[in-house]
Amino acid sequence: MNYIIGIDGGGTKTALKLADSDGKLILSNEGGPCNINSMGKEYVQKMLKELLEDTLNKSEITMEDIRVLCIGTAGVDRPDDKKIMEDIIRGTGYNGKVVITNDAETALYGGVGGNEGVILISGTGSICFGRNSEGETKRAGGWGHIIGDEGSGYYIGINAINRIAKGYDGIEEKTIMTDLILEHLNLENPQGLIQFVYRSGAGKSEIASLARLVDEAYKQGDTIAEEILLRAAFELFLTAKAVIDYLKLNRKECSLAVNGSVIEKNECVSNEFKRLMNKNYPHIKVINMKNDAAWGAVLMGMNN
Amino acid sequence: MNYIIGIDGGGTKTALKLADSDGKLILSNEGGPCNINSMGKEYVQKMLKELLEDTLNKSEITMEDIRVLCIGTAGVDRPDDKKIMEDIIRGTGYNGKVVITNDAETALYGGVGGNEGVILISGTGSICFGRNSEGETKRAGGWGHIIGDEGSGYYIGINAINRIAKGYDGIEEKTIMTDLILEHLNLENPQGLIQFVYRSGAGKSEIASLARLVDEAYKQGDTIAEEILLRAAFELFLTAKAVIDYLKLNRKECSLAVNGSVIEKNECVSNEFKRLMNKNYPHIKVINMKNDAAWGAVLMGMNN
Repeated sequence: MNYIIGIDGGGTKTALKLADSDGKLILSNEGGPCNINSMGKEYVQKMLKELLEDTLNKSEITMEDIRVLCIGTAGVDRPDDKKIMEDIIRGTGYNGKVVITNDAETALYGGVGGNEGVILISGTGSICFGRNSEGETKRAGGWGHIIGDEGSGYYIGINAINRIAKGYDGIEEKTIMTDLILEHLNLENPQGLIQFVYRSGAGKSEIASLARLVDEAYKQGDTIAEEILLRAAFELFLTAKAVIDYLKLNRKECSLAVNGSVIEKNECVSNEFKRLMNKNYPHIKVINMKNDAAWGAVLMGMNN
Repeated sequence: MNYIIGIDGGGTKTALKLADSDGKLILSNEGGPCNINSMGKEYVQKMLKELLEDTLNKSEITMEDIRVLCIGTAGVDRPDDKKIMEDIIRGTGYNGKVVITNDAETALYGGVGGNEGVILISGTGSICFGRNSEGETKRAGGWGHIIGDEGSGYYIGINAINRIAKGYDGIEEKTIMTDLILEHLNLENPQGLIQFVYRSGAGKSEIASLARLVDEAYKQGDTIAEEILLRAAFELFLTAKAVIDYLKLNRKECSLAVNGSVIEKNECVSNEFKRLMNKNYPHIKVINMKNDAAWGAVLMGMNN
């Protein structure tokens, strides 16, 4: 037999899809986090081994039936990183062909349904990745929450906290976000945000999840929230622009798929981003993901 | 006898000054970090005990000769924090009068040589603090490097890294800062900055120390470095403005003392800040610190 496994190894969960040689989905499955830096190699290897074994059991096929396994995870850009991930896959007992790539690449394959186009991700973090018909690739953004990740949920959340602080200090007008966010975090006053950010070990994702409340404040007419969201959309546009121009996609018809809670669900960011894209790149179609990154990994696997 | 001890308890070192009842300096001394959160209470108590004993030995006076001990440290704004610090002081064996206050307050006393005026600090972090003749006080800024600290060395350093990343991605023009900072950090390419910021545990102060190179790039004609520095100066001005306007110091003659490596040594930031102050608040004199915060603590102690 001739099966393909595609894996999207994320920081909070791992999604697996099994397909047959005709590109028909047989089974979807799910495992824990796939981040070597935060979880350690042993955890990731054990998780992948169990996920594979569970998948094989459920589908009644054997390791030998798998022709190719393609996995996309964050931070495997350097050859050293790829080697580590390959050793982990081999450690699960799988001996077939392995394709190891970046999660942005599998998201692109899944999102546009092929290997030409652009993927823009804005969830907790943000990144843009594209490929043209000549096979050239280009990444922009994705420098993480401290250096960059402009236009991401974290960017919106931390900017909201900054503007609440400025309102409290009298540096600028108070914002509706103050009440919305303090109530959400169960804090009595803006000074409590210091405890929230520095002492309670609030992670990226907790700060990023405040983006929803910034959108809420915007809908209530808050101009500071609007400013943050319009700026976020503009930053995402600039990131996409760098990829589009580098790959010379600016005059041809192609798709840009958007992925992640901010760019998909935040109305202000989503509308403004689409407006900027339509105005500057009318040939590029902004679409929602056709398929997820795990299916993108299946497609990549089939092409290898 | 009737001596006064003033202590400026900082995050990297503690400065102590001993004065007699006529306000004459007898002795300066120095101890380790005075931050309870990072060093722990026991460390701080041991450090202060040794510092006091060493001071008494050197000056040949006894604990009983000290009339008042005034200490300024970061993060003692809440009554709970003051109580913790008082217990620590009592644990050293000192039984006289204790004054516990914020380090911005002692810096103000030292900087303007009295209790009316404004102190603007921009070193690794940034904060502004002021007091008017009615005794009202006002703080702005000082929210730490993640939430705020606009115009600080950290703010300048992290913005420089962000703009280097944007130059690398093709989102904007390349900057002279790229070569200066990569060479300084001994990195081969901008992607190495990810390792520097996230994996090597680069602290606030390491990132803040890059501000010097941003000034260097500015002097070589780099417009992006100039943009960062002018923005930093403007943010510091807005922070000072909030304090000045709140305390209604905007029409009377008073002093604003500046303190910290950025606002004292970075020519672009310093000049632009002074230009904005002179233009908007011609009655307010921008001065360098008359005395340091430890001497400010002595002055506060004498007035108590």
